[in-house]
Amino acid sequence: MSDLLGSWIDGVAGTSVPADDRGLQYGDGIFETILVRAGQPRFLEAHRERMRRGLERLGIQFPASGELPGDIARATAMAPPLAILKIIITRGSTTRRGYAPAGVVAARRIVSLWKTTPLERALLEQGVLLRIARLRLPSQSPFAGIKHLNRLENVMAAAESIGTPWYDSLLLDSGDHVVSGTACNVFIVKSAMLLTPPVDLVGVAGVMRAIVLREAARLGIAVSQRLLTMHDIAGADGMFITNVRIGVVPVQRVGEHVIPMNPIATRLAAHIEALDA
Amino acid sequence: MSDLLGSWIDGVAGTSVPADDRGLQYGDGIFETILVRAGQPRFLEAHRERMRRGLERLGIQFPASGELPGDIARATAMAPPLAILKIIITRGSTTRRGYAPAGVVAARRIVSLWKTTPLERALLEQGVLLRIARLRLPSQSPFAGIKHLNRLENVMAAAESIGTPWYDSLLLDSGDHVVSGTACNVFIVKSAMLLTPPVDLVGVAGVMRAIVLREAARLGIAVSQRLLTMHDIAGADGMFITNVRIGVVPVQRVGEHVIPMNPIATRLAAHIEALDA
Repeated sequence: MSDLLGSWIDGVAGTSVPADDRGLQYGDGIFETILVRAGQPRFLEAHRERMRRGLERLGIQFPASGELPGDIARATAMAPPLAILKIIITRGSTTRRGYAPAGVVAARRIVSLWKTTPLERALLEQGVLLRIARLRLPSQSPFAGIKHLNRLENVMAAAESIGTPWYDSLLLDSGDHVVSGTACNVFIVKSAMLLTPPVDLVGVAGVMRAIVLREAARLGIAVSQRLLTMHDIAGADGMFITNVRIGVVPVQRVGEHVIPMNPIATRLAAHIEALDA
Repeated sequence: MSDLLGSWIDGVAGTSVPADDRGLQYGDGIFETILVRAGQPRFLEAHRERMRRGLERLGIQFPASGELPGDIARATAMAPPLAILKIIITRGSTTRRGYAPAGVVAARRIVSLWKTTPLERALLEQGVLLRIARLRLPSQSPFAGIKHLNRLENVMAAAESIGTPWYDSLLLDSGDHVVSGTACNVFIVKSAMLLTPPVDLVGVAGVMRAIVLREAARLGIAVSQRLLTMHDIAGADGMFITNVRIGVVPVQRVGEHVIPMNPIATRLAAHIEALDA
């Protein structure tokens, strides 16, 4: 039984995509995964802004006015109390074969609605366990920050934890810097300051990461984006992971390193959970 | 009017793929582009071997015995004198959302046949013009050598040459090493020896590259895989690009650097063109 609740291609209910779509052929597109809570998509403006940046970088046209609101309305109308809305935008079909985006007809929207569940209470309270991924990311990518469709690194690093007690794998780059989890950003607390790796060379600019940066500033918590290594993790006063589905979740252990629980993580988690948006 | 002549999904004629396919969702799969000449797929064993290595690396099952031969027979039966057969194998559809390849049903074969044309005679005789891509590749990728579906780098570098007189863009990595063109491997001639960049850290292990390495050895031409920079290109006695569609094609110029024509390139081109396989 699938977790897929419904899908719409360019605004029309449907479950299939032309085989010549460049998203399938080359990973030529971007996506967003949006949490829908009580029928309301959360942090829509931040998702929209990241989508805009990604499409601009790839030279793909942003959907015409009204198209995305229509997609969102159709999907949220049938959403259970908690769901994930996934919006993929590809460069669309082409009349020619080959990498060069020539003969492109029009960008394509592939929208799907998925069941999801809240994170187990025990994980929220005691924190999650992270292992260190064997797979190493490059230390720089031409598409850093963008949530594009080239996600084999995330797939294969996530595959490493299947059937294990680890919640996720922590990704390091080839220069031994901490990048992120496979589907989350990471923050550490050090001397009451939040530190998180920058996403201008590698990694994804997570929407929940952006919300944490904004809300920490509002709460008067100092934040800095800087390169982190396992040495920083081992010496951290606290650590948490973020994504739009789970929010802010403390980390209990990274490999052999036990991380202290920290009240800043708990405070941020509760604050963001309670936001209206 | 599209260059697409036909497509088959898991052996059945069709033009659409389930929207939840992981090839589309994450670029989770591999592909091969095979030249079909007079109804015969060329270098099939080399394509099959690269496919096997790629699928093994990604933990995707190789198609069952008989499936690929059936795909190839269906497509080549309707091929014009010259065509491209593209075989994509994805991890297939999943019942769950998320990077981890859990809940996977079965790998999926997406086969398509495309029109193609031989390279213009003038380019074969006088050589092609390459520019240097603005986009820089990472200096190492966890999936080096594999022809996987995460091809945004190739797409965006190829986009740089659209509407220009340049035939293709030469890709350098972040350490200033020459990697390849966007859809071809590169060789230089230096003191009667062939040199080509290794593909164990970055780049694609092209089938025509493998054929050139094999046939050069048979012809008694020395070959070495080693890191190359623009300094090596500027000082080369000759240069050529390779892929299965165009074969071996001399390079006339890279950016400002004029490259001499070299008889070794011409000899290899004619030799490989005449191979039966």
